[in-house]
Formats: sequence, C-alpha cells, structure tokens
Amino acid sequence: MQPKLTVSTSERAQLVDITDQVAHIVAESGLMQGLCCLFVPHTTAGITLNENWDPTVKRDLLTALEGLVPWSLHYAHAEGNSAAHIKAALLGASACVPVQDSALVLGRWQGVYLAEFDGPRERVVVVTIIEDGVA
Amino acid sequence: MQPKLTVSTSERAQLVDITDQVAHIVAESGLMQGLCCLFVPHTTAGITLNENWDPTVKRDLLTALEGLVPWSLHYAHAEGNSAAHIKAALLGASACVPVQDSALVLGRWQGVYLAEFDGPRERVVVVTIIEDGVA
Amino acid sequence: MQPKLTVSTSERAQLVDITDQVAHIVAESGLMQGLCCLFVPHTTAGITLNENWDPTVKRDLLTALEGLVPWSLHYAHAEGNSAAHIKAALLGASACVPVQDSALVLGRWQGVYLAEFDGPRERVVVVTIIEDGVA
Repeated sequence: MQPKLTVSTSERAQLVDITDQVAHIVAESGLMQGLCCLFVPHTTAGITLNENWDPTVKRDLLTALEGLVPWSLHYAHAEGNSAAHIKAALLGASACVPVQDSALVLGRWQGVYLAEFDGPRERVVVVTIIEDGVA
Repeated sequence: MQPKLTVSTSERAQLVDITDQVAHIVAESGLMQGLCCLFVPHTTAGITLNENWDPTVKRDLLTALEGLVPWSLHYAHAEGNSAAHIKAALLGASACVPVQDSALVLGRWQGVYLAEFDGPRERVVVVTIIEDGVA
Repeated sequence: MQPKLTVSTSERAQLVDITDQVAHIVAESGLMQGLCCLFVPHTTAGITLNENWDPTVKRDLLTALEGLVPWSLHYAHAEGNSAAHIKAALLGASACVPVQDSALVLGRWQGVYLAEFDGPRERVVVVTIIEDGVA
C-alpha cells in the first residue's frame, strides 16, 4: 500500500509523465475516496502536475526554469548541480491528488510528472494512498 | 466528504480568496483533527496560501510572477498561455492544511487562494478531508 | 498527535533543518505506514526539502531566490517584506513525506527545512500524522 515507482530519465532536465503508473497503483488499491500523495526521495528532482496533451508545454516549462535558474551560473556548491537543487525546490518534492472510485481526480488535460533536473538517472516516486473520511 | 468548490475568476491573473468556503466545508465535516487537502484539476491555475489582510500582497505576488514569467515572451506552446502553465507549476496544484476542532489551523493573517493565471474562467477546487491518527 | 514545533530563526533569510525534530515526532507516533504532513501557519516562511549534507546547497538556494525576488525592489505592500511573501509562495506552506516503520522515508541526503524569509522570528511548524490504508 506504499509502492515505489522507478523512473529512468534520459536527459539532464526532463519531465517524465508518470500518470499511467500512478493511476494503475490507485486502481489496484481499490480506494473509493481519498488521497494519493506522491513524493520523490531526491533533492535534484521534483513532482509537478501539468498539461500532458501538447508536449510544447513541457518544453516551455523546462526552458523557463532554465532561464530563471541557469545551470552554468556561478554557485557555491562544488558539485556543479546547484541549479537542479533550486529547480527541485521551486516545484516541490510532494503533491497530493484526490481519488474517487479508484481513479485519480485529474483535469482533462492534466498529468503527473516526475521532474528530473540532474539526469540521466534512475529515480523513485513513493506513492501513499490515504482513505478519506471522518470516523 | 470530497466536495468541489466552484470559483469564477474575472481577470487573466488573479488570486481569489477561498478561505471562507474551505472553512465552511471543514466546519460541516465535523472533523476534530486531521488534514484538509486542496487540489485544482487545472493546468493554468494553482493553490497558494498567503496574507489575506493587505491586498497589496496579492498584487505584489502577481506582479513578481509576471516579471519572472512574462505572458508575451516567445514560447513553443501555440495556445499562447504557456506563462500560465509555468506560473501554475511554480505555485503547485495542491496544498494540505491542518484541521483542529472542525477549523483550519491557519496563521492570523493567512488565507487560502485559488491562483488564476489564464482567466477569466470557471475553476474548481477539490477539497479532501482526512482524519488524523494512528489506529 | 498534531504537535507543533517551535523554530527560532536568526537571520532574515535562512533554511533551518528540522529533520531531527520531525523524525522524533514520527518515531513517537508509532505510525507504521502513512504520511507526515508539515505546515507553516505563516505567510513569510515556507517548508522545503533539500540536501542537508553540503551547506552550500542552502546558500545557493537562498541566493537564487534573492536574485529572482530581490528584497529591495519597489513593491506595493507598505510593510517592506513583499519579497518574503513571494518567496514563501514559491516554496509553499506545506509538504507531505511518507512514513514507514515510524520513520520518514527520505532520500539519503534529503532533509526537511523551515524556510525563513522575514526573520529573525519565532516560527511554528504544525505536524500532522496520517495513517495509510484502505479500510
């Protein structure tokens, strides 16, 4: 009931659509009503939701983040991946999506993404299913 | 127990204070202790918390976001609303607020906002109430 | 079961590592599986997760945020702390971390931070423990 998704990224900065894998876990849980909380145990990757129809939305988001937090600026952190830490903080490490009838309550064009900022790597997303309601 | 608020926005970018509507749902739930998780099933709107006393705080936040992610920059996404997608990602689609004695545990000046970035539109906020505790 | 941490900050902008205090609360809760949701009832502070090994990561994050949202720009809000409100909105007021066997499921280098943007002050973090599972 607290499964981990493994996501292989192929670029330094990349939004990987994990909606289907998360939806599968929610369907298997049998949860009728509640919450599906996603978490990345990483400091240079994040979780975000956005349009999963037109791929240019992903590209624009990555380009905008690179413009705000350029990879090659002078940073204090010697590992050279400070921009990835900062972008991950801007998007956040967790997000909670409602569940109804064993399905994610997403908008029509909305998908769930792992946001990679220091790839390529193998990443993990921890999925926690919580039941709604007052006893 | 998983009600949806409907929020009508009147401007392209706008922070709509939904604290009272959310507080009403929490009061009706009778939840003594737990969590109220808010979610927007949209990709050009977000959820944020901020001061709801002085309205200039809202204005400054919208102005700062517009400065960081200008509407009229050149973006790949042909619909012309890429800035809205990016701003929504920066604020996030979900937030979870503690509940005590059927009331939101907010700071004295803190309110809950729907953040509209591609209005005017009719928006939805999904409210999930979760009970606290270890069985 | 909904304890409040008190955090004293000593600078205007500062990331205070609260991982140990949160882990202690989770350990005491005896929660075998679920979620630990953190919330700041403040509008000029936030919650973030990031590397807690090399302190330069914290410094780079604070420097980058100050570059994006300078303290001394001209803002409408007369109190002079608009930048703090904006930075707090960018990081967010809440985050939810999975729990397994009474411990936070964090990455090896990952820590939980209170992000102060208008200190020094005394801040509060509300910790909500939620049990996982479908009845």
